[in-house]
Amino acid sequence: MQGVRALFFDVFGTLVDWRRGVAREAESVLKPLKVSLDWIAFADAWRDQYQPAMEEVRSGRIPYTKLDALHRRTLQTVLASFGVETLREAHLARLTLAWHRLDAWQDVPAGLAALRQRFLIAPVSNGNTAIMCDLARRNDFHWDAILGADVARTFKPQPVVYLAAADALDLQPRECMMCASHSSDLAAAAANGLRTAFIARPEERPNSSESAPTTAVDVIADSTLDLAAKLDD
Amino acid sequence: MQGVRALFFDVFGTLVDWRRGVAREAESVLKPLKVSLDWIAFADAWRDQYQPAMEEVRSGRIPYTKLDALHRRTLQTVLASFGVETLREAHLARLTLAWHRLDAWQDVPAGLAALRQRFLIAPVSNGNTAIMCDLARRNDFHWDAILGADVARTFKPQPVVYLAAADALDLQPRECMMCASHSSDLAAAAANGLRTAFIARPEERPNSSESAPTTAVDVIADSTLDLAAKLDD
Repeated sequence: MQGVRALFFDVFGTLVDWRRGVAREAESVLKPLKVSLDWIAFADAWRDQYQPAMEEVRSGRIPYTKLDALHRRTLQTVLASFGVETLREAHLARLTLAWHRLDAWQDVPAGLAALRQRFLIAPVSNGNTAIMCDLARRNDFHWDAILGADVARTFKPQPVVYLAAADALDLQPRECMMCASHSSDLAAAAANGLRTAFIARPEERPNSSESAPTTAVDVIADSTLDLAAKLDD
Repeated sequence: MQGVRALFFDVFGTLVDWRRGVAREAESVLKPLKVSLDWIAFADAWRDQYQPAMEEVRSGRIPYTKLDALHRRTLQTVLASFGVETLREAHLARLTLAWHRLDAWQDVPAGLAALRQRFLIAPVSNGNTAIMCDLARRNDFHWDAILGADVARTFKPQPVVYLAAADALDLQPRECMMCASHSSDLAAAAANGLRTAFIARPEERPNSSESAPTTAVDVIADSTLDLAAKLDD
């Protein structure tokens, strides 16, 4: 992987466990309100609204809208589908921030620290900057910059998200490697000239996590520490 | 300073010593080419091109252009004014990156680390993201995010630069404090609703550094460590 100067990371699923985190946060907000539901199913249902919500922006039907705001809109749809209709604003606001309070997979803090010895590292996520800052504080990530949707003002897999990230660091796409547990992200990065690393995350969503990439990638790893070892070869 | 959640920092002059750094880098590139000139005067002359170059963007006469690219253009003007006309591209490119290789004032690494215990911290500089990343690596700054000109796609003191920085962190302007050694920066931040801290940097440019702010500010400090102490009161 000669010539790679920066590693770009997908965050939800690749670095942090959104599923158990959102389930835990939903339970902590809703259980005291006497709401009882399948918290994991709730997290999955909310996540299922993610691509359709972003597609509104990608298609140009609505202007760029931060993921926090999309989460706020989709939350009400999902709550309604679970029969929860009358939450107060303060509870909706707190629940929307569930995505700021997710835990990293166990390998990630040490893996990113090891990779940072040799590469610039930045999230290139569809999450907005404030989410990325809060996740970094919570999990002790030391990013060089926060790149991604807010910089490009649209969402992956739009080409400009990858290209704007490379440009922000004054790098060519071939000097950047996108690291993700989702083939769709890696295929789009590769189509725009970036190198790619697949990081397997079987626990992201056990019934649908990819055990192997479905697109050609430069590196396959089973953790960020494994990626650090493979990039050291 | 109740309610302040994030501190925004001007960088050139406030955190790093551009004058001696650019002089040193110019000498290291040009002296081996048998060029001899007053290196500090060269740094000052290059810096004098800074506001006029940014004004081309602020006025709308040219589209947003990264500071690296503005530095590259103004470099040739300044070299010509010192009688240096025939530098090779590789030397021009290396000299342009002088602004990526500046040293922090002595208090800054410890001061920022102390402030980071209580606040989100981010540069809100006219320097582009790549400059900010390189200065952070060189001087061991741990930013939460890189904000500033690249995010707003124009330069301070345009209001959008301050407002886009607050928005990136999902904060109101009053929850953000601009910290700088230049009153013009602080006056613009205050006019847009941010709190302000003046940090005196008498060594920035001894004949013209401000010893005290010429605009009303919330805090006056003589270093980042002093700022940390004053915000702890």
